Amino acid sequence: MKRTLVVLLLLSTECLVAQSDSFRIRQLANEILSNSKAYQNLRVLTKDIGGRLAGSPQMYQAEQWGFQALQQAGATTVWKQACMVPHWVRGGADKAMAITPGEKRNLDVVALGNSIGTGEKGLKAPVLLVNSFEDLEMKKDQVNGKIVFYNYPFNNTLIRTFEAYSDASKYRGQGPSRAAKYGAVAVIVRSMSHSTDNHPHTGSTRYDSAYAKIPAVAIGLQDADWLAQQLQTSELKVSMQTLGHFLPDKQGHNIIGELKGSEFPNEIITVGGHLDSWDNCEGAHDDGAGCVQTIEVLRAFKAIGYQPKRTIRFVLFANEENGLRGGNKYAEEANAKGERHVFALESDAGGFTPRGFGFTMSDEQFKKVSAWRSLIAPYGCNEFSLGGGGADIGPLNRTFKTPLAGLQPDSQRYFDYHHARNDTFEAVNKRELELGALNMAALILLVDHYGL
Amino acid sequence: MKRTLVVLLLLSTECLVAQSDSFRIRQLANEILSNSKAYQNLRVLTKDIGGRLAGSPQMYQAEQWGFQALQQAGATTVWKQACMVPHWVRGGADKAMAITPGEKRNLDVVALGNSIGTGEKGLKAPVLLVNSFEDLEMKKDQVNGKIVFYNYPFNNTLIRTFEAYSDASKYRGQGPSRAAKYGAVAVIVRSMSHSTDNHPHTGSTRYDSAYAKIPAVAIGLQDADWLAQQLQTSELKVSMQTLGHFLPDKQGHNIIGELKGSEFPNEIITVGGHLDSWDNCEGAHDDGAGCVQTIEVLRAFKAIGYQPKRTIRFVLFANEENGLRGGNKYAEEANAKGERHVFALESDAGGFTPRGFGFTMSDEQFKKVSAWRSLIAPYGCNEFSLGGGGADIGPLNRTFKTPLAGLQPDSQRYFDYHHARNDTFEAVNKRELELGALNMAALILLVDHYGL
Repeated sequence: MKRTLVVLLLLSTECLVAQSDSFRIRQLANEILSNSKAYQNLRVLTKDIGGRLAGSPQMYQAEQWGFQALQQAGATTVWKQACMVPHWVRGGADKAMAITPGEKRNLDVVALGNSIGTGEKGLKAPVLLVNSFEDLEMKKDQVNGKIVFYNYPFNNTLIRTFEAYSDASKYRGQGPSRAAKYGAVAVIVRSMSHSTDNHPHTGSTRYDSAYAKIPAVAIGLQDADWLAQQLQTSELKVSMQTLGHFLPDKQGHNIIGELKGSEFPNEIITVGGHLDSWDNCEGAHDDGAGCVQTIEVLRAFKAIGYQPKRTIRFVLFANEENGLRGGNKYAEEANAKGERHVFALESDAGGFTPRGFGFTMSDEQFKKVSAWRSLIAPYGCNEFSLGGGGADIGPLNRTFKTPLAGLQPDSQRYFDYHHARNDTFEAVNKRELELGALNMAALILLVDHYGL
Repeated sequence: MKRTLVVLLLLSTECLVAQSDSFRIRQLANEILSNSKAYQNLRVLTKDIGGRLAGSPQMYQAEQWGFQALQQAGATTVWKQACMVPHWVRGGADKAMAITPGEKRNLDVVALGNSIGTGEKGLKAPVLLVNSFEDLEMKKDQVNGKIVFYNYPFNNTLIRTFEAYSDASKYRGQGPSRAAKYGAVAVIVRSMSHSTDNHPHTGSTRYDSAYAKIPAVAIGLQDADWLAQQLQTSELKVSMQTLGHFLPDKQGHNIIGELKGSEFPNEIITVGGHLDSWDNCEGAHDDGAGCVQTIEVLRAFKAIGYQPKRTIRFVLFANEENGLRGGNKYAEEANAKGERHVFALESDAGGFTPRGFGFTMSDEQFKKVSAWRSLIAPYGCNEFSLGGGGADIGPLNRTFKTPLAGLQPDSQRYFDYHHARNDTFEAVNKRELELGALNMAALILLVDHYGL
């Protein structure tokens, strides 16, 4: 009889716990969907500060803003974690012009991040169209002295757009050096996008030290199509001028806010986004959204009076775009201090309607989080899958095997904006942004409550 | 041994069938995501024709466009099905001005569809703020001679935005007559939206014949907030002028394209959207998207050489917005001709990323379609739920118990645009639109193949 009572009590306690989770998440939903500061914060970050590449004056403004925003949201303590960051500057406007026998036409281009410039004099050379690296190898004897134009298309038939991005972005990363190997003088890369506009999309390139560093630009899709069509029937030259170069590294910072855990203060949960962005846009989706969502999770926890059991760190990472120094520094220092990092979540895939989470963790841990799906799904994230996280929290997993999650918003519009001048405040929808923060808050709440 | 062979053969046939479904849907995906005409069609419908309210000259232009578009997409036959439609006209620009002791301020308003105008002289009266119908009842003694301002908010905390719409839209539908009952001279309704802008959202109102018909406008959210705030501290009057009125009914048409079934030509599957829209916008999401998606399903079937077993009708319905005469006519004529309508699908919830289908059908039928979920989910629609369909296909269900489905795109942005001037071509994303068409095509293919 006693045992039955105990079992009944336990069962009802479990039931109450589940009800209390559901109630807490509903509280978070009401708070975030009624009183969120995420959209206002995003307006300040994007409109008042704007593009904030590592090393730029805007990087420091953004750090200062993030510090204050985390304080205002109610962090117990806020600090700056210093790390040296690369300091690449564009140096001026990127220019390119196609010259055919009958016409001169400006091309909408943007220098790739980390790329070397042509210098003030610019360069002019015939263009060689290649559709892929295989095509480059077949035409390698024609490359010397040319500008290689990689016109590799973004694969529209892949439903998950990040797969198309992953497929195409090797041309941005490896394209310049692979062309330089055969004597190319510069590279034009078709933008990694399926948009209907002509905005060029930048992003990092990586030079292979075995070959000459050559200038490299991305080109808008309409101009890419035009260029490809011209080259079918006639030869043409392109003149281009880019002024990108590196200055000495600067000291940047991860901005960290903390809520101390009441029961397990040494178990650290990290939630974050990256504070830097490319310089040619406002960095609203990438990754202003992730930053203001991170701050919103904190604000909402405080607003509903949630006292975490574990220590939660809200981190605005430095230099994701062209160095990842912030993410690396965070894991290094954690390692040096012997910290215990039990979970990390990143939002770095845009401020769109949340659809799921991707998890990098053991099967057993995944089984545990999967049991929470029904609690979170009503708020948007109904797809829980293995694989995913975020660039900035990746080093935690490599260092500590910390289980990771990445917020997966709807990805269909992301590459319309990614690293392009139209990644502005106006491209983010207030409610979609808030729903992302809400789903993040719900997941963090459950991890904090139950551990992993 | 023979029996084992037969079983093995049957199993492998089933396996081939499942593979062949998956292959066909992949074919549709490749076709639609590479060669869709939906976006181009939408551009013509919204930019060249524009708003196309029942009875307007643009209604006839849209009918002509739809007829040709269905022909070009490859319908075996295309015809117009005549039906009389109401002909409400706005009559001019809607105007409202708030008059306080110290200030005159223009308010951004739009007359409700089907509402009576103030006439050229306009009207001016003090404003009574009510927050709900309950509040109206409590203040009923103060209503006489006033303009009643319903400031009922769109409930942001409901995750499914159509629930908030359903909750709020009774103020647009019933508000004027319920205020007229107590002697109100006009009504201002807070727009049914959670947008961050100030665009007013129109939509139909319905007068109760027991009371006087009074003018009614919707007001943008920023102006609604301002007005509510003013009324907390001081009295104010509003002057308004609207010129809406009905002209005699006109003959409109459902535009119908057909692919004849090869095996069961008498079993009819309907897929459609509605061709009319409000006059104050381009009707891009509502419901240009549904129309061009419908045409795209047809085009894609033809392009991949799909020969349907059942007869498929692609229908652009007339007059959904303020009368539903097209949908009613379609079911009436089907009934008169003794047609057999086995399934109908409508897209009328915007051209956003598809997330699911809502089904109105028997549990057994729902069990059958639910078994197809895994085939469609990789393309976006992973939520299959009971309940849903579309206004235009509703009469089929009421007449024949025809099982229905409604495409359920992501709804978070829908009410930013719904019935407002910003429901334009630019608000629709090409890829999201195409994915909707693809998911519709996949569902139609499976219903055609297996029946229900």
